[in-house]
Amino acid sequence: MADGAPGRTSAAPYYRTVGSERDVFRRACGERLPVLLKGPTGCGKSRLVEAVAHELGRPLVTVACNDETSAADLLGRWLVRGGETVWQDGPVTRAVRTGAILYLDEVAEAREDVIVVLHPLADHRRELFVDRHDETILAPAGFQLVASFNPGYRRGPKDLKPSTRQRFVAIAMRYPEAAIETEIVATESGCETSVAKRLVSFANKVRELHEAGLAETASTRLLVAAARLVKAGVPPRTACRAAIVEPLTDDPSTAEALGDLADLAF
Amino acid sequence: MADGAPGRTSAAPYYRTVGSERDVFRRACGERLPVLLKGPTGCGKSRLVEAVAHELGRPLVTVACNDETSAADLLGRWLVRGGETVWQDGPVTRAVRTGAILYLDEVAEAREDVIVVLHPLADHRRELFVDRHDETILAPAGFQLVASFNPGYRRGPKDLKPSTRQRFVAIAMRYPEAAIETEIVATESGCETSVAKRLVSFANKVRELHEAGLAETASTRLLVAAARLVKAGVPPRTACRAAIVEPLTDDPSTAEALGDLADLAF
Amino acid sequence: MADGAPGRTSAAPYYRTVGSERDVFRRACGERLPVLLKGPTGCGKSRLVEAVAHELGRPLVTVACNDETSAADLLGRWLVRGGETVWQDGPVTRAVRTGAILYLDEVAEAREDVIVVLHPLADHRRELFVDRHDETILAPAGFQLVASFNPGYRRGPKDLKPSTRQRFVAIAMRYPEAAIETEIVATESGCETSVAKRLVSFANKVRELHEAGLAETASTRLLVAAARLVKAGVPPRTACRAAIVEPLTDDPSTAEALGDLADLAF
Amino acid sequence: MADGAPGRTSAAPYYRTVGSERDVFRRACGERLPVLLKGPTGCGKSRLVEAVAHELGRPLVTVACNDETSAADLLGRWLVRGGETVWQDGPVTRAVRTGAILYLDEVAEAREDVIVVLHPLADHRRELFVDRHDETILAPAGFQLVASFNPGYRRGPKDLKPSTRQRFVAIAMRYPEAAIETEIVATESGCETSVAKRLVSFANKVRELHEAGLAETASTRLLVAAARLVKAGVPPRTACRAAIVEPLTDDPSTAEALGDLADLAF
Amino acid sequence: MADGAPGRTSAAPYYRTVGSERDVFRRACGERLPVLLKGPTGCGKSRLVEAVAHELGRPLVTVACNDETSAADLLGRWLVRGGETVWQDGPVTRAVRTGAILYLDEVAEAREDVIVVLHPLADHRRELFVDRHDETILAPAGFQLVASFNPGYRRGPKDLKPSTRQRFVAIAMRYPEAAIETEIVATESGCETSVAKRLVSFANKVRELHEAGLAETASTRLLVAAARLVKAGVPPRTACRAAIVEPLTDDPSTAEALGDLADLAF
Amino acid sequence: MADGAPGRTSAAPYYRTVGSERDVFRRACGERLPVLLKGPTGCGKSRLVEAVAHELGRPLVTVACNDETSAADLLGRWLVRGGETVWQDGPVTRAVRTGAILYLDEVAEAREDVIVVLHPLADHRRELFVDRHDETILAPAGFQLVASFNPGYRRGPKDLKPSTRQRFVAIAMRYPEAAIETEIVATESGCETSVAKRLVSFANKVRELHEAGLAETASTRLLVAAARLVKAGVPPRTACRAAIVEPLTDDPSTAEALGDLADLAF
Repeated sequence: MADGAPGRTSAAPYYRTVGSERDVFRRACGERLPVLLKGPTGCGKSRLVEAVAHELGRPLVTVACNDETSAADLLGRWLVRGGETVWQDGPVTRAVRTGAILYLDEVAEAREDVIVVLHPLADHRRELFVDRHDETILAPAGFQLVASFNPGYRRGPKDLKPSTRQRFVAIAMRYPEAAIETEIVATESGCETSVAKRLVSFANKVRELHEAGLAETASTRLLVAAARLVKAGVPPRTACRAAIVEPLTDDPSTAEALGDLADLAF
Repeated sequence: MADGAPGRTSAAPYYRTVGSERDVFRRACGERLPVLLKGPTGCGKSRLVEAVAHELGRPLVTVACNDETSAADLLGRWLVRGGETVWQDGPVTRAVRTGAILYLDEVAEAREDVIVVLHPLADHRRELFVDRHDETILAPAGFQLVASFNPGYRRGPKDLKPSTRQRFVAIAMRYPEAAIETEIVATESGCETSVAKRLVSFANKVRELHEAGLAETASTRLLVAAARLVKAGVPPRTACRAAIVEPLTDDPSTAEALGDLADLAF
Repeated sequence: MADGAPGRTSAAPYYRTVGSERDVFRRACGERLPVLLKGPTGCGKSRLVEAVAHELGRPLVTVACNDETSAADLLGRWLVRGGETVWQDGPVTRAVRTGAILYLDEVAEAREDVIVVLHPLADHRRELFVDRHDETILAPAGFQLVASFNPGYRRGPKDLKPSTRQRFVAIAMRYPEAAIETEIVATESGCETSVAKRLVSFANKVRELHEAGLAETASTRLLVAAARLVKAGVPPRTACRAAIVEPLTDDPSTAEALGDLADLAF
Repeated sequence: MADGAPGRTSAAPYYRTVGSERDVFRRACGERLPVLLKGPTGCGKSRLVEAVAHELGRPLVTVACNDETSAADLLGRWLVRGGETVWQDGPVTRAVRTGAILYLDEVAEAREDVIVVLHPLADHRRELFVDRHDETILAPAGFQLVASFNPGYRRGPKDLKPSTRQRFVAIAMRYPEAAIETEIVATESGCETSVAKRLVSFANKVRELHEAGLAETASTRLLVAAARLVKAGVPPRTACRAAIVEPLTDDPSTAEALGDLADLAF
Repeated sequence: MADGAPGRTSAAPYYRTVGSERDVFRRACGERLPVLLKGPTGCGKSRLVEAVAHELGRPLVTVACNDETSAADLLGRWLVRGGETVWQDGPVTRAVRTGAILYLDEVAEAREDVIVVLHPLADHRRELFVDRHDETILAPAGFQLVASFNPGYRRGPKDLKPSTRQRFVAIAMRYPEAAIETEIVATESGCETSVAKRLVSFANKVRELHEAGLAETASTRLLVAAARLVKAGVPPRTACRAAIVEPLTDDPSTAEALGDLADLAF
Repeated sequence: MADGAPGRTSAAPYYRTVGSERDVFRRACGERLPVLLKGPTGCGKSRLVEAVAHELGRPLVTVACNDETSAADLLGRWLVRGGETVWQDGPVTRAVRTGAILYLDEVAEAREDVIVVLHPLADHRRELFVDRHDETILAPAGFQLVASFNPGYRRGPKDLKPSTRQRFVAIAMRYPEAAIETEIVATESGCETSVAKRLVSFANKVRELHEAGLAETASTRLLVAAARLVKAGVPPRTACRAAIVEPLTDDPSTAEALGDLADLAF
């Protein structure tokens, strides 16, 4: 669930800046204000975090939040090894101790009790209370808290409560405009620009279909997958169906309508 | 819940290609894009995976997803043996380590927290974070993620969330056309072609009955079972009832109507 | 929850064949197709299984399915004994290993995760994956999977899902016709045939009362109990009330109506 | 939760027979048919069981059923004592082994999985499968299963399922008629007959009040409590309020109406 | 959750008798009938129990009932200490063994399974079955069961079931009349009688406001708190707001209306 | 989850008194009455507690309440260390033992069973029953119980029950008036007073928007975050969006409307 391997940030990750998101992110880091990235699936939230971590030269600890993660999973636990009980830090404790960037991916999926444990870390106190280890850790200057959140996919109860939200500076992210997105798709897949252009054009038509009943719309990630299939020899129309249409819907008539749009694009 | 016995893929499994499904599957593997097989019960999803694994000469690790599987079941756990605490890899960790094909059967049945653990494995990172073992495993080139999903049998909450779906290339599978299905039924059961033909004809009549209130319709698997009963000496009409009608419905009048259709076929 | 005592099948159990149920059962066993017995409470499902197990000379392992049975209960678990950790097979693992008949009584009561574990055992793979013991067991030729299911007593969510149902040959069982049921009641209770006849006649009147709001109707088992009370000296009308009417309903006016029917019979 | 102390049945418990309930109970015991006592709170179900156990000279094992009792609580568990793992029988196992009367008090409160474990004990098999101890116990001739159930106090899901009910001979119990109840109240409390008479008269007026919205009505047990308070010096009207009215209702106006009825009686 | 410290009852606790409650309580104790104290928050239920325990010279064991208390919490559990498994009595077992007064505070908050465990202790049997310790304890003559219950604060499912209620003599308690309550407030807080008088007068105005939508009304306890704040130098109107109004409501307009009433009183 | 590090209160924390809240708090402490701070997110509840703890020179133990905290987490548990079982006090036990200020942050988020455990600590008894350690601790004079509660953010069942609320003196806190809030924002962020003034003016316009459908409104904390971003070089309008608007809402049109208000302020 978490990773703090120091070698990960050695190569500069590809992230194409779209607006002021990177600038606000960096300045919030300078002020040690927690940052919340809000945006749809596959719009580049995780990549932005990787890029800023690399730029600031800090280790990155990622936690994929979910309903089953317990406070012990995050903070640490007592293990029995060689007849002795030894303490093992969890990823959050490790991140605080080492002054890393702690990235809570899809924070709204986490259980409230886990989020509440992070509250003292996310306000003026900047402290982590590791109760089971009977320890209070004051976060060093380099520690930075970042979380991501997808507001378009919230089921009823899965919203962040105000006392959590108001601890973060929140940056809204959206899919980039056509020219930038074409550049991203071509760069990431290695496909020809003309293919990337048509895929972006197709995606934007799908994104305008508010009545299609889609839970979410076509992300940049899907376009990159389609472009890679095309480069691997799959006919463009088949690639659009497998990489874009079928991941978006299980409804046969919606799939057919989206497939017709793909045929128009190629 | 999982199996990675190396000897399993030594005999070429029977799988009859129906459309472009096998080709897209192989090319997605070449691009290291995760694959989602979508289709109804008994249409051959598991067999397709077995066939591609055999063709690519890679070990196959199958996980039957369900509501109770925990992240620890998949990733591994600490066991106490002979006074020492030893780590035991779970099937997912084993599959990543060995570069196997990891097959998540009925992935929509899994708990979200289990699926979320696989997200970093299913995007550009191709990494598995085994938190309890304090280890990050980068998937080798040969590792391939495959999942199956039955969109026709979804109860309300049991849908894949967009951030999961959009990590997969999705291939829609359907029951094969009559000639191909007849060939499959005859080959698998060893029954005469004339019996297989009638069974397929009966199945297609059942499949047209949208008003029958069936949760799902007659699968190729059911036809093979009926053919085997006939070959074992059960009268065809009785075999159709036991192997096709009664597995499909508990409603007496629906069962009678389907039984009448079977009588017409034989 | 399970029993595999070898001595249990030594005496031929009493089972009176009603239709083709025994024949289809045996032939499905010959083809190694899993069998699902569908029918109301007390119609003889468990006795049929015992009779076929005896006839085939195979050990029988029964599992009474319920909401609380875990996969570990069925497959096995690690126990600490004398300072060492030893593995103990669960009943399903024991049944697969020894090639027994595995009988899942009231399978629809089991949790889905438990059922899903049995899927690879119930299709062409015939394999059991015992994850916690890191072992894959291929079922020997003699292994046979049997399950029972009561379709008349389903509360909303408690239905078998299609991907489970379509793995079984299903045999529908009903209460036998009057002459056969009279023979069964007299044989099992040792009562006079005239008493058995009246009890069956009373039961069939109850079974016709669709409007009585009964959750289920009078089973053969209830008639046998009443016959035994009569044989023990309880007046027939009192016996009918205690052994048939009161087990069927708690509603005073329904009980009175059924009691009047009993009085008419005797 | 269970008691099998041998000394308990040494004194003949007071139970006043009302109808055929005791006779049917004894004959069902003779036939080894499980018995279900159905009736409202405080009508004497537990006392009847104690009386029959005493009459038959058999030990009585009582289990107070509830939602939290596990199969392990009933069947037994492995305990660590002096470095060794030893098996401890639970009350049900002890009752079967010793051929006792096993009394499941308020059986409808038990979890289904616990009830299902008792099914093979409650039909022709008369066997208990103690899976964790890897043991099958055949009940000796003297073993008798008895359960109690209050049909007037059922909340939706808390009903016995038909496959359980149809394993029992069911005896319906009701509050006794006035003369008998007066005798019971006077005998149990040691109060004067005139007081007992007035209490029974008051109770019967309360029992006729179907419109009072009471969850249950005044039981014999309440009358005995009131009689004991009177004998201890509490004024009869105050005793009726404390021992009968206030236990029955929390609604002030209902309490006042019932109190007025009590005043009329004394 | 429980306390049986012997030294607690050495000082006579202050309890001002209001009606016949203390007398009925004592006589029920003499008859060994369980007692249920019914009444609103802060009316003196716990103090009455302390007073009677002191008067009878018996130790008092208090259990604060709640949703999470398990039968093991009450009865006891096996603990591993120094390599040996030792049994630790829970508070109920300790109370029964020592013949104490067992006080179940807010009994309706307890889970049903926990309450059911106490049933044999609350009827003619006066026995506690400690299943896990394989022990039956007969309550000594001095043992007395007492419970409290707040009928005015019941959320739907949180009611005592009839088979529990009918095991108790129930005593209804209410807030005392003005003169007595003034005496109580002045005695407990040490404030001047004139202040106590105004507080009681204010409280009685609040208690008459049935339309205010308050979950409960002003208890004697709140008046004592306000009186102590006044004695500590807080202006009476501010004290009324902090100690009475704000604990009663979060609704701004209700708080304002109640505050105006307080201003009128002072 | 809790912190009792003695060094924490060495520097006087910044808290700007708004009304009588600090005075009532101190006097309630003098009377040893538990205190409940009621108010919206980010209005300064935690800071007030820190300030009073510092002023009184007492250690502060904070518990962030949540749904998953168990009584054992708060009271303590038995741990195995070096082969011996040792007792470890939880934060509440530690606070009572040492006579600290125990601060239950967001008490309404705690499970009822945890709150009920604190009841005897919160009334005239001032006792903590640590059942698992078989110990009753009488709170020393210096012990003080404080809790916080946000009445504006209550989801249905998450309300404090009356028997809990009536154990506290409750102090209602609100956002300070403009001049004081400007002073606070400027002091905490180090920004210019003119920026602080405009931010407060913007916040007060947002707070007047009752129809905006916001779960909560702009807190002082958000204003401080915006002021820090401005000081770090982010343009004021962008800072308002990231630090105030986006944390408050995910709805695009609401965000736009709030953004327009921000543009008007700068």
